[in-house]
Amino acid sequence: MPKETEILEKIQNAVQMESILAVVRIEAEKIDSFMRADLARLNAVVDGLLLEVLDYGLFNGGKRIRPLLVVLASRLCGKKDDDAYRLGVAFEYLHAATLFHDDIIDQSETRRGKPSVYRKFGTTAAILAGDFLHAQAMATVGKFSGQAGLEVFCKATTGMVDGEFMQLRNAQNHNLSELDYYDAIMGKTGLLISAACEIGAVYGGGDDRSVKALRDYGVQLGCAYQIIDDLLDYLGDPGKTGKAVGNDIAEGKMTLPLILTINMADHTDRIRLMKILADRNERILCTDEVCTIISKYGGFTDARKRAEHAVKNASMMLDVFSEKNNSLERNVLEGLARYVLSREK
Amino acid sequence: MPKETEILEKIQNAVQMESILAVVRIEAEKIDSFMRADLARLNAVVDGLLLEVLDYGLFNGGKRIRPLLVVLASRLCGKKDDDAYRLGVAFEYLHAATLFHDDIIDQSETRRGKPSVYRKFGTTAAILAGDFLHAQAMATVGKFSGQAGLEVFCKATTGMVDGEFMQLRNAQNHNLSELDYYDAIMGKTGLLISAACEIGAVYGGGDDRSVKALRDYGVQLGCAYQIIDDLLDYLGDPGKTGKAVGNDIAEGKMTLPLILTINMADHTDRIRLMKILADRNERILCTDEVCTIISKYGGFTDARKRAEHAVKNASMMLDVFSEKNNSLERNVLEGLARYVLSREK
Repeated sequence: MPKETEILEKIQNAVQMESILAVVRIEAEKIDSFMRADLARLNAVVDGLLLEVLDYGLFNGGKRIRPLLVVLASRLCGKKDDDAYRLGVAFEYLHAATLFHDDIIDQSETRRGKPSVYRKFGTTAAILAGDFLHAQAMATVGKFSGQAGLEVFCKATTGMVDGEFMQLRNAQNHNLSELDYYDAIMGKTGLLISAACEIGAVYGGGDDRSVKALRDYGVQLGCAYQIIDDLLDYLGDPGKTGKAVGNDIAEGKMTLPLILTINMADHTDRIRLMKILADRNERILCTDEVCTIISKYGGFTDARKRAEHAVKNASMMLDVFSEKNNSLERNVLEGLARYVLSREK
Repeated sequence: MPKETEILEKIQNAVQMESILAVVRIEAEKIDSFMRADLARLNAVVDGLLLEVLDYGLFNGGKRIRPLLVVLASRLCGKKDDDAYRLGVAFEYLHAATLFHDDIIDQSETRRGKPSVYRKFGTTAAILAGDFLHAQAMATVGKFSGQAGLEVFCKATTGMVDGEFMQLRNAQNHNLSELDYYDAIMGKTGLLISAACEIGAVYGGGDDRSVKALRDYGVQLGCAYQIIDDLLDYLGDPGKTGKAVGNDIAEGKMTLPLILTINMADHTDRIRLMKILADRNERILCTDEVCTIISKYGGFTDARKRAEHAVKNASMMLDVFSEKNNSLERNVLEGLARYVLSREK
């Protein structure tokens, strides 16, 4: 039976997480209202069909984590104003632009339980609306955070594309190292999240040390986020994630649990895994067997430990802001990192 | 028989055009070398496959008119340095990015006699490489021409997308007005060309009057360029253009000769044209009949007159630079406008 102190700690953690999530929800509504104001400004000057696509693709109940990171980072560096929200919106635009294009590339039928933009409006509209948001995002970042911010933003965008090309080239390479994996998830998730933190810090007038700390926080947060995302693909509850388990295996995608297992497995198991991975039918038929082998070597547990380690690192990065130890911003940033570990979808 | 003075004038014009084209060729090589230097800088940091796509898509014997306009405009405003070429490269990047995406949208198999990027490397690579160039273009414009330039550039990009949405919505509308047509060709060609002129002027330190004059020059140049392009679709020599005639008619695309004709035609001819336009098979079978009706009302001649008028306007815009009446830059800008009228491909 658990000790009383343990139970108490759990309750406290749960209450704390609930209040973090309440902040996230309130801020997400605020970000949505700034985004709606920005689109309303466009209402007079752009085509009605384009606006319809933007409205459909942008307002889908997203948590607006990236804009929130911009706002929190700028506040932590000492600047509290509404333009931080307007700057943050650029990250939601770029994020949406990449999703519009990625859904074409991956032929994804749905996104958050609705038809994806390209399924609903066609490939042409999805490509063009993505390009529109891309340009709009750049203009916004340039406007509010100047050349310094724009360079970070463009490096993140080009780095994301570069990462996708690496994935394209590595699609059938089942010998990826743990480092290759970290490179890939930086491109997929880490770059944009760390750019949000860094540009928020630049906008907030942070000194070099603060800017670096927030960028590094973002790198660690993005890393933890993607590891958990990849774990959910194996272990998630389809009722909560809305996705079937085993997608990555079926596609032959090498994520952390599998990479760690291949490094640890004995000769027989490694040969067996490689044989399964080499053939699509085998991969679909033998998903359970792959999971059993990964479990045998503790691949899931080890992957989760890497995510926990990244979250610990993320929090540590914020130590440079010691004078603001108990500020709301810092608490929310640390809470967001912990939330990543507890998410089930 | 033509008078001796007329023959002499023709020869003089031909010699002048040849020297303008010689300048264009020399400058295009210089622009290519700056572009190659920029890509070589990326060589160490981006994926090899991405570089291959960029190399294939960017170096295709293009005349580099947009970068050249940046260089000429900045020189006309008094600044002569190599960074104008580096800034100009951004316009070639954006132009290429839109072609990569447009070829997917239009399912174009070839571009300048080679397989289009998406046919050669696949849709994924074409979307991503376009996004990469888009971001790279924005960063370059921000770097060399600051926030003022970036805003013009982003407005041009978003305006181009907006124009494509308008076309998407108007695809089956055969009642377009002449003004609708000018709106459409602004999005398609005019915005990027006028942005090149305007940003070159901003970079060159031109005053408001000079910046406006060069922007307006660009609008007129782009307008003339697109009218001639659309005329070539009816009247071009397939041996020179590399394209079959009558594509626009087959697709039911409303361009200037047809729009002007519908406005002038009597009831019978208008009804006949509308009947042909309403059905794809009819459009393909009756292309010759459409051409005959357009000729009957002088639609081709009138469209060409509009282009000539735009070229005259373009040259007139440059009158604010009277003190540099005989400068090379001004001569080339005026020559480029005249060249648009003489091009056969």
